[in-house]
Amino acid sequence: MNIQEYLRLQKERVDTALEKYLKEDSKYSPTLFKAMEYSLKAGGKRVRPILALAAAQSVGGALSPVMPVACALEMIHTFSLVHDDLPAMDDDDLRRGIPTNHKVFGEGVAVLAGDGLLSEAVYLLTHRELLSHVEPRVVLEILRDIASATGPRGMVGGQVLDLEGEDKRLSPEELENIHRHKTGALITVSVTSGAKVAGGNEAQVECLRHYGVHIGLAFQIADDLLDVTSSTEQLGKTAGADTKNKKSTYPALLGVDGATKMAKENMDKALAALKDFGESADPLREIAKYVVERKN
Amino acid sequence: MNIQEYLRLQKERVDTALEKYLKEDSKYSPTLFKAMEYSLKAGGKRVRPILALAAAQSVGGALSPVMPVACALEMIHTFSLVHDDLPAMDDDDLRRGIPTNHKVFGEGVAVLAGDGLLSEAVYLLTHRELLSHVEPRVVLEILRDIASATGPRGMVGGQVLDLEGEDKRLSPEELENIHRHKTGALITVSVTSGAKVAGGNEAQVECLRHYGVHIGLAFQIADDLLDVTSSTEQLGKTAGADTKNKKSTYPALLGVDGATKMAKENMDKALAALKDFGESADPLREIAKYVVERKN
Repeated sequence: MNIQEYLRLQKERVDTALEKYLKEDSKYSPTLFKAMEYSLKAGGKRVRPILALAAAQSVGGALSPVMPVACALEMIHTFSLVHDDLPAMDDDDLRRGIPTNHKVFGEGVAVLAGDGLLSEAVYLLTHRELLSHVEPRVVLEILRDIASATGPRGMVGGQVLDLEGEDKRLSPEELENIHRHKTGALITVSVTSGAKVAGGNEAQVECLRHYGVHIGLAFQIADDLLDVTSSTEQLGKTAGADTKNKKSTYPALLGVDGATKMAKENMDKALAALKDFGESADPLREIAKYVVERKN
Repeated sequence: MNIQEYLRLQKERVDTALEKYLKEDSKYSPTLFKAMEYSLKAGGKRVRPILALAAAQSVGGALSPVMPVACALEMIHTFSLVHDDLPAMDDDDLRRGIPTNHKVFGEGVAVLAGDGLLSEAVYLLTHRELLSHVEPRVVLEILRDIASATGPRGMVGGQVLDLEGEDKRLSPEELENIHRHKTGALITVSVTSGAKVAGGNEAQVECLRHYGVHIGLAFQIADDLLDVTSSTEQLGKTAGADTKNKKSTYPALLGVDGATKMAKENMDKALAALKDFGESADPLREIAKYVVERKN
């Protein structure tokens, strides 16, 4: 399969669905709508939704009931970026090549746009397209998984650890702990949620959880490497920002070679977790390779 | 019934439950935990949880399965206060008599503490104490109601309208629209959620929705009146802040007498909505009176 073409097609599907969900029932403050839409449409790669769709495919499920979950995951990811870019946090002016939310709409609206995206994500997780295909009990389990991966035990907890780790020299274990929470939890739950919607059994979901943990780490290490080796133009965000902010990163701790090796090891572990899956898991396999080999 | 005693007892129950839920499974960043706990324990009146419990009682349901929902509503309310107090929004230093979250923990952690409280609220809405008593389909309906009341169509949407209305002279209709969203939606959903958990039928839930809308407005008008007529010490937040911030309020638009009359009218409508309910709705009736007659 051609992974670039696959990712382009899936991204197009996700973008169309996001547009649709965003417009449904959106007769609220035009400013808030614009601010939420601005960051949602700001050109993300849609890694989390595509993982949810690919995981559903890997267990042989239909894709359409997965779409509300896939889009909710992208909304949660976007909410975290909007808040992460705020002056009180990373203080970034540029994200995905365009000004950050608070630069355009002001800090107050940016905080609320993030809050709105998280609330809408939860709302979307009760969408009829999901409920008409999946048992309520399973939907509630997915909601619990996603809330856990989003909140203090997951992403938000990781963001606090990250804030606290600034200006400190962290050990590789501490850095891994931050990333397992900050980015890993939501990536992992994207994979397991897609599989659960599609009716994957416990053993399958468990293998996919391992896959998710390892591509989550591989993704983050690759991100750190790109910050060192790419230009601002290639990245769509300020290159070298980690070094400037004295952030602990994998290349800073292990060197570029050491970090590259660690990314590959995690890719290999992700692939190994799929050993009992047939061709239906090829998209997940190609994504694992893409994650460490991508150029932005 | 003695409403003061009733409110004190229910608040104690809610506080005990909040403490329990907060400690369950909370092995995450100690800083985040402290920041979330700080604002949750900062002495709120627990209006929303008490409304959920009283609504459950009004339809004759057991209280224990309502508790996770009641506490989730308080977490959502607290999340909104933490974000609302931020320098980019109302820029308040004092809340419930003590320094606001960002004054103690810094702005970055305060943003994340709010995010954490919202995520934890969703997590709590999938708690076994709820799921073991209420059909998954009904839990999902409650989750959808609460997400809608929290997000762009509700509270968060109202906060944006409020930000946009600053320094403008609003009409009474515009002001009511802000409050129906900013505070009314969550108060209304507190009442309907409590009733739904307790197995209230559609007609009952519909009456209680009307009750909720009107005590929501009465509560807000009373709040505006207290800002004009009370001291900082009585309020536990800066008195006269609305006037200082040139905020449109009911007393500013209608005068103190006009606003007092409007609060009473809404109280009467709330009471009228309960006409088909027996003694089991007495707590809701007393709360409606308390809401407009309270002194802080």
